[in-house]
Formats: sequence, C-alpha cells, structure tokens
Amino acid sequence: MAHTSIPLKDSYKLFNHGPVSIITSAHGNKRNIMAAAWTMPLDFSPARVAVVIDKNTYTRELVNASGEFGLQFPMRKIAKVTLDVGDLSGRDVDKFSRFNISTFPASKIAAPFIEDCIGWLECKVIKQGAEEMDPIVGEVVAAYADAEQFLNGRWNFSDDPQKRSIHYMAGGEFYMTGESFRTSSRYSEEK
Amino acid sequence: MAHTSIPLKDSYKLFNHGPVSIITSAHGNKRNIMAAAWTMPLDFSPARVAVVIDKNTYTRELVNASGEFGLQFPMRKIAKVTLDVGDLSGRDVDKFSRFNISTFPASKIAAPFIEDCIGWLECKVIKQGAEEMDPIVGEVVAAYADAEQFLNGRWNFSDDPQKRSIHYMAGGEFYMTGESFRTSSRYSEEK
Repeated sequence: MAHTSIPLKDSYKLFNHGPVSIITSAHGNKRNIMAAAWTMPLDFSPARVAVVIDKNTYTRELVNASGEFGLQFPMRKIAKVTLDVGDLSGRDVDKFSRFNISTFPASKIAAPFIEDCIGWLECKVIKQGAEEMDPIVGEVVAAYADAEQFLNGRWNFSDDPQKRSIHYMAGGEFYMTGESFRTSSRYSEEK
Repeated sequence: MAHTSIPLKDSYKLFNHGPVSIITSAHGNKRNIMAAAWTMPLDFSPARVAVVIDKNTYTRELVNASGEFGLQFPMRKIAKVTLDVGDLSGRDVDKFSRFNISTFPASKIAAPFIEDCIGWLECKVIKQGAEEMDPIVGEVVAAYADAEQFLNGRWNFSDDPQKRSIHYMAGGEFYMTGESFRTSSRYSEEK
C-alpha cells in the first residue's frame, strides 16, 4: 500500500477521532510492538502527542532507552494484531516474528512501522513522564497517511469496512469508525 | 433521560473509544462550557483522566480556580452544541443561556452537567500541568452512563443514530461511533 507523507501540522488528523493505536519501538538489536488505546494529540505546531505506556512494559524500556517510538493506527483488517501483541511480552519473544507481522522502515527513527494502518507518526520523546501518572510526550518528526484514503488534507474513508480505523472498548470489543457527517454552529449560521 | 451511576473502575469505558467531549466548569457564580477532542483515560484505579485545555481559555481559568471539572461525551443529537460553544468566550457571555443548553447538577462538583450525553464524569484536578505541554490530570470521583445504552458494564448502543457517541475530526466534520465487532488473539485461539 502507498504511504503519503503529510505536513506535521496535519498529523493530529490521523487520530483526532480517537482510534486505537499500535506503538512500535527499537533499541540496539531489540524491537517491540504493543497496542495502546490511550493516546491523544497535545498540540498542532509543533505537533506533539501524549501516549500512556505502562511503566512495567518492555515497550516503555525501549522507548526510554532510544528516545523514540512509532505510533500507527490500524485498519480493521488487522484488528486481531492489536490483541495478539498484548498476550506476550516482547522480553520473551520477538512478536513481529511470532505473529508474522510484516514491517517497513521509518525514516527518522529506528522503530519499524507495520502495514495496513491508516496513518503513521515518527515520534521523538521530549518528556518521559517523571511520575506514574504522566504520559510520555513525543514530538512528531514525520507523518504519513494511507494515500488511498487521505486526500487533500482530509479523510475520505473507503467503503471497504476492512480499511476503516477502529476504536477499542474492552474485552476484545471494538467499534469501527462510522459514517461521517458535518454540522455548523448556530452562531455561524446567524451571522 | 436516566443516568445510572457506574463504578469508578469502569469509568474509562465511557470514552476508551475516543469520542469528542464537552467540559463544564464553575467557580463562584461563574460557569462555562467548551468542547475538547483531546482527552483520554490515564489509569483504571484510581480512575484518572487527562484533558488538554488551552492555557488562554476561560475554562482553564475556572478549572484551575475551582480544582474541578465535568467531562461528558455528547450524543450525535447535540453535535451542534460542540461547535456552538467554540464560537464565543465564556468570559463575554453565559454560553448555557446563549445557546439554551439545559443542565442538571453533579453530586460532588459545582460544575453542571448537560443532557443528551452517553456518559458523565465528575473530576477533581490532581495536577494542573506546570508546562504548556502538560495536560490537566483529574481523578474521577463520580461517573454516570446513559441508563438506556450502558447495561451490565458494557455499551449496547441504540439503533437510533442520534443517540450514538461522536468523534471529531476538523472543520465541522464528525464520525459516528460505528458498528461493534469482536475478535480474539491468535495466541488465545491456539491454547
């Protein structure tokens, strides 16, 4: 699939709607992959993101050691992968090999990206989070979107439900990103 | 509509799927309302949330002064309200009156709640955010869900699209929370 580079100031559009994410990390010859529902944009420019990564995870260890992470938003077709990678620790097994997850290289970070996502962000850690409750803050240094569905700075999701982004609830239950609609404010209509 | 009290440990389920939110605040005889797409759970127990509220807003002023805020997730039927409240500053006008937004009282915070949401969280500020990039961190002290759609600890969204939660993109464009699906991990299937 084709990945189109997008302006950093538009990178929040990849996940402003709150889809589940997959975080990839690498340090030395180690790499890892985990799913994360708790991510959000923090600022438009410079583009910043906040992600919650449990203190005890191998991902946290690799992200802190390398100062980098990849943040991507899976399509429905790989929903299973977001559960697969939660069952095992990357300390014990290379989850990419174990679950046959194909990757492609990022440009400015060592962590690999995975296919079948709607968007990908390369992030450099700017704040590790001193206290337990602090999310990790990253600055977006490169951003890409699925060239088929992100056109002229906006989403134009395919009718194929397998290509939609997905939102995680709990216990293996997800919601697809549903139909789009537009509205306007009463104030703007009165003007 | 009926609001059912839910256990604090389940409060993340109200917005784990990333819907847009409305933040209400009050201090002394002042109150305000704003929309926020950038919110996420931070922890299950104690239940904590992170919300991004611009430093220059009247909401930020009231939240910091009172140490409290209300966080709620609007149904599609009031999508317009999330845009309405972004057009004016609460410093200049009471937006509840201006847009005829009906409220009901919270139990442990002074900020009012608004109707036609899927869920409501009463939050006490535990971290204001020292630096510009820091979100405000709140502890959830009470949580309620739409009694019609949240049953036995899980969502059972109505077929009425007007009752669905919504996800904000940009420029007045939203996505509805779409169809639900379940999957399981390959590891669990192999066992």
